[in-house]
Amino acid sequence: MSGNDIRYIDGGVCAPKGFRAAGVACGIKGVSDKKDLALIAGDVMCSAAAVYTTNKVKGAPLKVTKGNIADGRAIAIICNSGNANTCAPNGEEIARETCALAADSLGVKAEDIVVCSTGVIGQELSIKPFEKGMPELAAKLRHGGSAEAAEAIMTTDTVPKEVAVEFQIGDKTCHIGGIAKGSGMINPNMATMLSFITTDADITPELLDAVLKEDVKTSYNQICVDGDTSTNDMVVVLANGLAGNDTIDGEGEALDVFRAALSEVTTYLAKKLARDGEGATKLIECRVSGAADDKQARAISKSVIASDLLKAAMFGADANWGRVLCAIGYAPGDFSTENVDVDMSSAAGMVEVCRGSRHKEYSEEEASKILAEEEITISVDMHQGSGSAVAWGCDLTYDYVKINGDYRS
Amino acid sequence: MSGNDIRYIDGGVCAPKGFRAAGVACGIKGVSDKKDLALIAGDVMCSAAAVYTTNKVKGAPLKVTKGNIADGRAIAIICNSGNANTCAPNGEEIARETCALAADSLGVKAEDIVVCSTGVIGQELSIKPFEKGMPELAAKLRHGGSAEAAEAIMTTDTVPKEVAVEFQIGDKTCHIGGIAKGSGMINPNMATMLSFITTDADITPELLDAVLKEDVKTSYNQICVDGDTSTNDMVVVLANGLAGNDTIDGEGEALDVFRAALSEVTTYLAKKLARDGEGATKLIECRVSGAADDKQARAISKSVIASDLLKAAMFGADANWGRVLCAIGYAPGDFSTENVDVDMSSAAGMVEVCRGSRHKEYSEEEASKILAEEEITISVDMHQGSGSAVAWGCDLTYDYVKINGDYRS
Repeated sequence: MSGNDIRYIDGGVCAPKGFRAAGVACGIKGVSDKKDLALIAGDVMCSAAAVYTTNKVKGAPLKVTKGNIADGRAIAIICNSGNANTCAPNGEEIARETCALAADSLGVKAEDIVVCSTGVIGQELSIKPFEKGMPELAAKLRHGGSAEAAEAIMTTDTVPKEVAVEFQIGDKTCHIGGIAKGSGMINPNMATMLSFITTDADITPELLDAVLKEDVKTSYNQICVDGDTSTNDMVVVLANGLAGNDTIDGEGEALDVFRAALSEVTTYLAKKLARDGEGATKLIECRVSGAADDKQARAISKSVIASDLLKAAMFGADANWGRVLCAIGYAPGDFSTENVDVDMSSAAGMVEVCRGSRHKEYSEEEASKILAEEEITISVDMHQGSGSAVAWGCDLTYDYVKINGDYRS
Repeated sequence: MSGNDIRYIDGGVCAPKGFRAAGVACGIKGVSDKKDLALIAGDVMCSAAAVYTTNKVKGAPLKVTKGNIADGRAIAIICNSGNANTCAPNGEEIARETCALAADSLGVKAEDIVVCSTGVIGQELSIKPFEKGMPELAAKLRHGGSAEAAEAIMTTDTVPKEVAVEFQIGDKTCHIGGIAKGSGMINPNMATMLSFITTDADITPELLDAVLKEDVKTSYNQICVDGDTSTNDMVVVLANGLAGNDTIDGEGEALDVFRAALSEVTTYLAKKLARDGEGATKLIECRVSGAADDKQARAISKSVIASDLLKAAMFGADANWGRVLCAIGYAPGDFSTENVDVDMSSAAGMVEVCRGSRHKEYSEEEASKILAEEEITISVDMHQGSGSAVAWGCDLTYDYVKINGDYRS
């Protein structure tokens, strides 16, 4: 239960009316029976909006998707894991053929399909596993299939990530559901890891696009696992209008409610991505207040959770606040660092470690106990304005090195 | 032996005429007998130039040093390790008192002393250990004392770093020597870790400043261990003119030779810093050619060596060139990534892994053998201009996590 009468419910991307999903193993991940192909299909045409990675090297599917949803419409999302289809020969051809295969099995047009890939960069991808898997995938589509789709888009993720919320617009009950994947190569910038969001709310494509672009600034763009901005990041929202609310086509209470519900879903998934960072044992949240403005607060909070040194200190349950100050100091922008307060807290309590940019006496024993928890909050007060923001990351562990020292084998 | 008749010699900062150095243990690092206080003293007044960290949180000694060398002159450098004197109460007072102590024992003015600190941020620092250590430090000053000074500025460094070169300006033999420290919190930006350079060449303070500022762009600013730009980075050069060359006061052959010799010293030390990155087992060099210009090439090469994912792959001897392309793609600037070639090489051979941004068939066995070496070169050709650059980093290992999970204890 959250504010604004937004209620968490089960069902993921299938919680909104009119969406089916499925996931199968088609062989892209090798001979294993690991699921590697997901399909999310709308019963009717949807408004569609997406944001993409800012990496100049872009996965071929992103280019195809960008063209396909240029008209603000789409009806289904097809996504494989195990191969990023990036820097691969015939990448765009494979992505288009994948759309055609999905479209054929759904009886829709290839230009209304969103296509995504995630996995290893630079390896050849064949259309064969898609051809093999598509019949089974289409046959398995069902209104309760969100969890299978969430599983099929995983790479080094340790848990599938899905969420759904229910809320009212006027007298109509609306839903937003989402799934996401991401564990490494996570430092979204104007986009994110793969995240697919569905809603039965009725909203124009233009507003959907505007709301999504604004939303990612405080959700996906505020997480970081390793500073590596992926080539394949993408967030897609499909809105089919089946909730029957008056079409949201401008500012007003309905848009405010939709915005809040979307933020609930995206923030939930963003935190899950950070917590499931490669090798992570802890979720690190940095809450900044008192910055000159929200944008400055976002930059500062993200700089803190992205610091390798701070991440390693959190792994070691070491209240080394000097590393927080150091990371604040190299955040972009021009601001004072002369009067900064830092607290560290968790379910085990709170300790004030820095006041006015100077050490504050505290019990190292108590601090270690607090930092031994799995969810740590670092609160920073900059004392120079009313800007605030939150960012999420994870600790840096032996397992991050292990996972990435030999990812391909 | 290097080009331009620049010869490597022994002696570090004491190789140039007229410089003495020493290092002692004065108790800042606790009760251990680890050296923690270094002094480099000129026999005569020197031209002085420095570059400093861009971190907005700055160590107190940097502020004092900036004031002291505003007139382009200095005669000695005093530096402690074990405490950064950053975000500490009375930090500037302690830094000024340290200058006064050094000045008194040398019979010079406090305003001609360069003061530096490195170590933990945010811990109180007392003048007492300086008072205790200064008499011994001054007594130990000698023309062969560079190695002791290099040792006394170490923190998590595993080896001291020093170098010296000899070269001719006209008929005069000149020298440049340097020491440096740095292992973690290394992502210099317009400055570097602590690096102290001495020379007996005669050069005006204005030119020394200009040459140093230009030099760091291709030396210290091109290394990265962990992306954390320190609060205390500083490079200082003292030039005492005792070589007797005609004062270098403008463009010409003499300045070109001096520039080349300085670059030899700074590049050598920068590579040593990268190789001794916290927990590192390998030096990773990225050579970029074919970029639009040198600045773009610098950004691309630095983005590659700074990528946690690429660093972990190098630790695992995994020729995962997709991570090279990914890191190139998020380097700042607007450029094409459509036609990129990547080679990986070491003393064990060379393997071409990517051509035209696409996979090139190679033997994984051979690649593993090449990447098992301790010095790896990743060569990137962007095929769009004549810009080139080199950057240096290290692999990301279990030990980086271990060292930084509990640095303070």
